[in-house]
Amino acid sequence: MQLIKNAHILTMDQDDRIFHPGYLVIDGDRIKEVGSGEYANESQCDWVFDAKDGILIPGMINCHTHLGMIPFRSLADDVPNRLHRFLFPLENQAMDAPLVYASSKYAMAEMLLAGITSFVDMYYFEEEVAKACQEMKIRGIVAETVIDQAPDGEEKFAGLKYGRSFIQKWQNKDLVTPAIAPHAPYSNTSESLKAAQTIAADFQAPWTIHLSEMDFEMSKYQKECQSSPVQYLNDLGLLDDRLIAAHCIHVDAKDIDLLKEKGVAVAHCIGANTKSAKGVAPIKEMLQAGIAVGLGTDGPSSNNSLDLFSQMRLLANFHKTYNHDRAAFPAREIVRLATYGGAQVIKRHRELGSIKAGNLADLCLVETQSANMFPVFDPYAVLVYSANASNVSHVWVNGHLCVEDKHLSDVSLDQLKQELIQAMEPFNQALANL
Amino acid sequence: MQLIKNAHILTMDQDDRIFHPGYLVIDGDRIKEVGSGEYANESQCDWVFDAKDGILIPGMINCHTHLGMIPFRSLADDVPNRLHRFLFPLENQAMDAPLVYASSKYAMAEMLLAGITSFVDMYYFEEEVAKACQEMKIRGIVAETVIDQAPDGEEKFAGLKYGRSFIQKWQNKDLVTPAIAPHAPYSNTSESLKAAQTIAADFQAPWTIHLSEMDFEMSKYQKECQSSPVQYLNDLGLLDDRLIAAHCIHVDAKDIDLLKEKGVAVAHCIGANTKSAKGVAPIKEMLQAGIAVGLGTDGPSSNNSLDLFSQMRLLANFHKTYNHDRAAFPAREIVRLATYGGAQVIKRHRELGSIKAGNLADLCLVETQSANMFPVFDPYAVLVYSANASNVSHVWVNGHLCVEDKHLSDVSLDQLKQELIQAMEPFNQALANL
Repeated sequence: MQLIKNAHILTMDQDDRIFHPGYLVIDGDRIKEVGSGEYANESQCDWVFDAKDGILIPGMINCHTHLGMIPFRSLADDVPNRLHRFLFPLENQAMDAPLVYASSKYAMAEMLLAGITSFVDMYYFEEEVAKACQEMKIRGIVAETVIDQAPDGEEKFAGLKYGRSFIQKWQNKDLVTPAIAPHAPYSNTSESLKAAQTIAADFQAPWTIHLSEMDFEMSKYQKECQSSPVQYLNDLGLLDDRLIAAHCIHVDAKDIDLLKEKGVAVAHCIGANTKSAKGVAPIKEMLQAGIAVGLGTDGPSSNNSLDLFSQMRLLANFHKTYNHDRAAFPAREIVRLATYGGAQVIKRHRELGSIKAGNLADLCLVETQSANMFPVFDPYAVLVYSANASNVSHVWVNGHLCVEDKHLSDVSLDQLKQELIQAMEPFNQALANL
Repeated sequence: MQLIKNAHILTMDQDDRIFHPGYLVIDGDRIKEVGSGEYANESQCDWVFDAKDGILIPGMINCHTHLGMIPFRSLADDVPNRLHRFLFPLENQAMDAPLVYASSKYAMAEMLLAGITSFVDMYYFEEEVAKACQEMKIRGIVAETVIDQAPDGEEKFAGLKYGRSFIQKWQNKDLVTPAIAPHAPYSNTSESLKAAQTIAADFQAPWTIHLSEMDFEMSKYQKECQSSPVQYLNDLGLLDDRLIAAHCIHVDAKDIDLLKEKGVAVAHCIGANTKSAKGVAPIKEMLQAGIAVGLGTDGPSSNNSLDLFSQMRLLANFHKTYNHDRAAFPAREIVRLATYGGAQVIKRHRELGSIKAGNLADLCLVETQSANMFPVFDPYAVLVYSANASNVSHVWVNGHLCVEDKHLSDVSLDQLKQELIQAMEPFNQALANL
């Protein structure tokens, strides 16, 4: 058993209980006990850790990302039409299984170091991502992309075939949940969308899609079928409660009603959406409607960091300003979106996203020794308005201590970086020839 | 002489020269030489430091803050009318010289650790801030606030008297530039505003003010004199080229023309402005008009961190989204605002804000070893979209190495915190009785 003591514990449970000073006992992969003051049976614990008033929260959940895309980070960020000028050509020419594997491991390390313990990935060669996920001991929904032309298949919509066999093979594994991800309504046919949904249904697997993200989507579906991307999916019978829709920037009241009615969850990616000048998704209205909303970093080239601290801060400032109300989205609600909200999105809120006895021990400890972390009148405010990812000191996934004193426990970051640099050689050559 | 080698040097000079790998030689308080490759006379240097491909930029300049306000951080952040319910009462009851001194030292430590080497402060008991500034070896414009009722004086607008004697006493000191700061047009009389300007003129000192920040200011001046806060100041003859105007959120085309014509510089505080839902200042238009614009964190309770990395990222995302243009405000322009732009605001751009031989050696080195800092295709993009304040590893002010390997060289942060905790005792009592 592991004991964490002298922590400032934000449980994010339904009563928003805070234990300060608090203790938490981990037994195997579960939280055994959490409470105020001192733990009576300290002597029975194998490992006792003094959190020194650090803030302990549930591990954060990144509901939308593309872990294979570390090689694109800081490349052509401010260039118009970047997707078609850089990302798609380089993906088709230089993205291969070894690069996805090396990039995903590196990205998982970055997420763990930032206190993220669960993620939803959408990319190619997802078997590599699943392997990386197991090795890095992080929890992931790992979704193979379905799109017209993909780097991991010859025929059109090759992700359907890859996805079915991938999900079959990786079902019922600890930590990894295999899934499928049609890229977007506009980059799929109605048939390929339907086929993806069927695969998800056959295996009771999650599925995820980019939805109402691009400006052109709105006019396209308005012109072609007098509707919206959300309504287009609904007309095809494609909205269901296993679907995680990323972005949903351009949604109207009818769209929000449909998403709620069908049980679709939303991954809100404020950093990527605003860095690319696309807009601010109306999550206040979504939350009021009762839609499950979590936070996503989006890919490392879209945001550009894989942490939810920067996203919480952007969310606060954008949504306060858009609602012209400094009291909108108080810090506690934002920490909830990054933890319990994410657990609701991935349908694991009965055992993840809050701190209580019996839940899985996915935890994030944020130190309060650094200069930016004093004083702590309101610990939620400190996390949202002052903290950055480098303040994370300890991270547990499934009871395993993955990050200790700001370092990975099981592998060196330098080694992961060297492996990624090596795997990037063909990518860098393709870039030079672009 | 100090030699920094193997750095990725962004000079931010007029040609935006980059040296990679680059070296930089410091002699006394000045940059002696900067160039590509290896320095020929390494053996003549007393101290040689391998930057290991870290990104070296001019020290960042924080053009607007209130360093005495660390005690307010994370207190009542999301509460409407926070200023009148918490800040003003606590300032009047519990803000005293020892607290300003302890808070300012702590805040200076936080800024140095975040790569800020110059600041513009506006608060009370500024003699304490000046002392702290000298002790912490950071560069500051230190401005005493003029307001109806102040915690550091009995009579109305006591800051006028304090400010005059303070400026007189602290003139021509290294690192400290004493100044005066009428709080805002709405919190001063036309007479006290004029008197503050006269003091600044008498000593050729800078002066600074909150301008067009609050929603009510616009309607107030529209109603009372059919003009704007900027035009009200102009009508009184109060716009001049020693004035640094913070915020300027609500300015129209005529205001921008006036600011440009009179040579007023602007401190853009995107984090504080959007956290409090006030709005986004039109700095694109200001920059197009040729106004000097720099970045400010605002006080530690308004933002809530004293670093410009979070501000650069907020600036990018807000201004791209407001202009609906992902190419707007490319990362290089944003790094320029945080460095050279700030130097223009404080009228020190001939020797600060860019890296070239002869300039003062105010420098910030950002390590690229952390997980969030790879790859570096575009170093400006890495600084704006990926880096956080904790990536700063070394900081020089006036040639003195103030931060080494992410720690203060001259004092321990723990000690500064303990001193601040002690000075906060009366403040915490007043808070408990509020």
